[in-house]
Amino acid sequence: MINETIQLYDNRPDVTLTSYVLYDSPELLGGKKRPAVLVCPGGGYMNCSDREAEPVALRFASMGYHAFVLRYSTYFRGENMMINPEEEMELNPDSVYPAPMRDIGKAFLYIHSMADKWLVDTSKIALCGFSAGAHNSAMYSVYWNDPVIHEHFNESPGLFRPAAAILGYGIYDYHLMANTDFDEIDPFAGVLRKAASIAFFGTAEPDEKMLDIASPSKHVGPDTPPCFIWATTEDTLVPVQNSCVMAAALSAAGIPFEVHIYEKGPHGLSLGTQATAGSLFETNAASSQWVQAVEKWLEYRFALPLKEKPFWMEEAEKSAPK
Amino acid sequence: MINETIQLYDNRPDVTLTSYVLYDSPELLGGKKRPAVLVCPGGGYMNCSDREAEPVALRFASMGYHAFVLRYSTYFRGENMMINPEEEMELNPDSVYPAPMRDIGKAFLYIHSMADKWLVDTSKIALCGFSAGAHNSAMYSVYWNDPVIHEHFNESPGLFRPAAAILGYGIYDYHLMANTDFDEIDPFAGVLRKAASIAFFGTAEPDEKMLDIASPSKHVGPDTPPCFIWATTEDTLVPVQNSCVMAAALSAAGIPFEVHIYEKGPHGLSLGTQATAGSLFETNAASSQWVQAVEKWLEYRFALPLKEKPFWMEEAEKSAPK
Repeated sequence: MINETIQLYDNRPDVTLTSYVLYDSPELLGGKKRPAVLVCPGGGYMNCSDREAEPVALRFASMGYHAFVLRYSTYFRGENMMINPEEEMELNPDSVYPAPMRDIGKAFLYIHSMADKWLVDTSKIALCGFSAGAHNSAMYSVYWNDPVIHEHFNESPGLFRPAAAILGYGIYDYHLMANTDFDEIDPFAGVLRKAASIAFFGTAEPDEKMLDIASPSKHVGPDTPPCFIWATTEDTLVPVQNSCVMAAALSAAGIPFEVHIYEKGPHGLSLGTQATAGSLFETNAASSQWVQAVEKWLEYRFALPLKEKPFWMEEAEKSAPK
Repeated sequence: MINETIQLYDNRPDVTLTSYVLYDSPELLGGKKRPAVLVCPGGGYMNCSDREAEPVALRFASMGYHAFVLRYSTYFRGENMMINPEEEMELNPDSVYPAPMRDIGKAFLYIHSMADKWLVDTSKIALCGFSAGAHNSAMYSVYWNDPVIHEHFNESPGLFRPAAAILGYGIYDYHLMANTDFDEIDPFAGVLRKAASIAFFGTAEPDEKMLDIASPSKHVGPDTPPCFIWATTEDTLVPVQNSCVMAAALSAAGIPFEVHIYEKGPHGLSLGTQATAGSLFETNAASSQWVQAVEKWLEYRFALPLKEKPFWMEEAEKSAPK
């Protein structure tokens, strides 16, 4: 495998793309290009969680797809820091909208530029995000062909097209978030929500226009890629209603989609298995089934270009007496 | 991840260990050591198949275990060559017994030497072999504490102990093989069997004593590790009877084991999914379920050392008013 970490901008060591590019072989695809999955970890736009990074990429790699982890712009600039609720947060202009979704665009450009070397089928690049990474992936999915992306890079919109989006426990309607009293549910949720708001909007009190721009469910259209949505109803950080609203928007727009809402499990399950857990609290056998579901779903459009028979069988049939 | 290929002997570029060592994080195991799975591809002791190498290692890595691929001594010295049934095979002294199983021992020594850097729990290293790699893994499983291994390396037997063996469509009783008329089943099988015999025994006609030594089912004992055996009844290269006989031997010796014999599917399925296939012939949805079964089975003894709760929850509980 080609496992490298690439810094995407000269002056920004915090924004990186890590490759998990599969080794090809005459016994496997023999030089044919493969689909890829670009993983966007969550972390409330404060950081990118390791629990939603490499182990997730490896699970997609094990399905036969190239995988990538994007560490996009976040408030703590890639440092593994915690917010201190006692301290006033200074603004970090690098992490505010639209920087994080532009980073996905930058990653698409980079993968396109390496497609021949890495054998990536650039018509089949899926996004897979969790929490803030799901919000970022959903934002990108509705804005990839908007000037906010392609004019910024001065590149053709086609280079940015995602083939699918896999969205776990994300925010898709910021109005819903504004109307939820998180302090009532969980004081920790209130602190996080405020911090995430300063990180992404640059203010704890974004106006209606900003809330609207940042609500991907309001902007689903004919160019939105097929989406796989999953969440748990017990999530106290991001209300599951977000996933319901996003599903309704996809359904209304006639975009192919699949939804799996599990009853049990906290926010931030990632794969829901020991592979992505630091504690048993972060595992859930039932909800971890989303991975089996997404494996089948990806095959609808990402099935590898396999021949009917292995080469030695073709040879044997050619040389067999008629 | 640490993805490196290490040459295990100075003068043997063909015998290599490739690491898929997982990145640790304070959010994951926070410095605790992990179990590992050492993958031995098949290939009739002629070569090591790419279809049973990296993609299999990645599937175990996605379960949260470090993974390694061992390319052990084979007839074609790591070259991807095909046998020519018209030509007499010269002897390659490097690939004959006991070289291939000693290579597993060398890999164990190397992994032990790197355990602190790579965070490997050396008391939990499983072998996973396919076909000839399953034979090699089964041989090692019954001979790891025999002088043929530890006296050769002049090291303590404890360094070689495998914690489990996962064996797919392997040969475990060479008498069964000697008594099967492969030419009758499939002319290709006859050619392969003869070539594999020259590669491993150094002769197309090994004597009874050699057949006995090379039949791991005859040597199961109290130090044989728990085994997970799987195969398909349609296999025309290695009769499924081998797996039945091995299961009987494990059962008789009171070694923990699990067996999954699927009805459908040819020899050499590997994962049985598109990830390990060069053609649709090498996939089988039903038989590919062995991977889900082995994931559960490994957790009986390899479950990661997870805490009860994440650190932020522990902190919140400490600071909560009593």
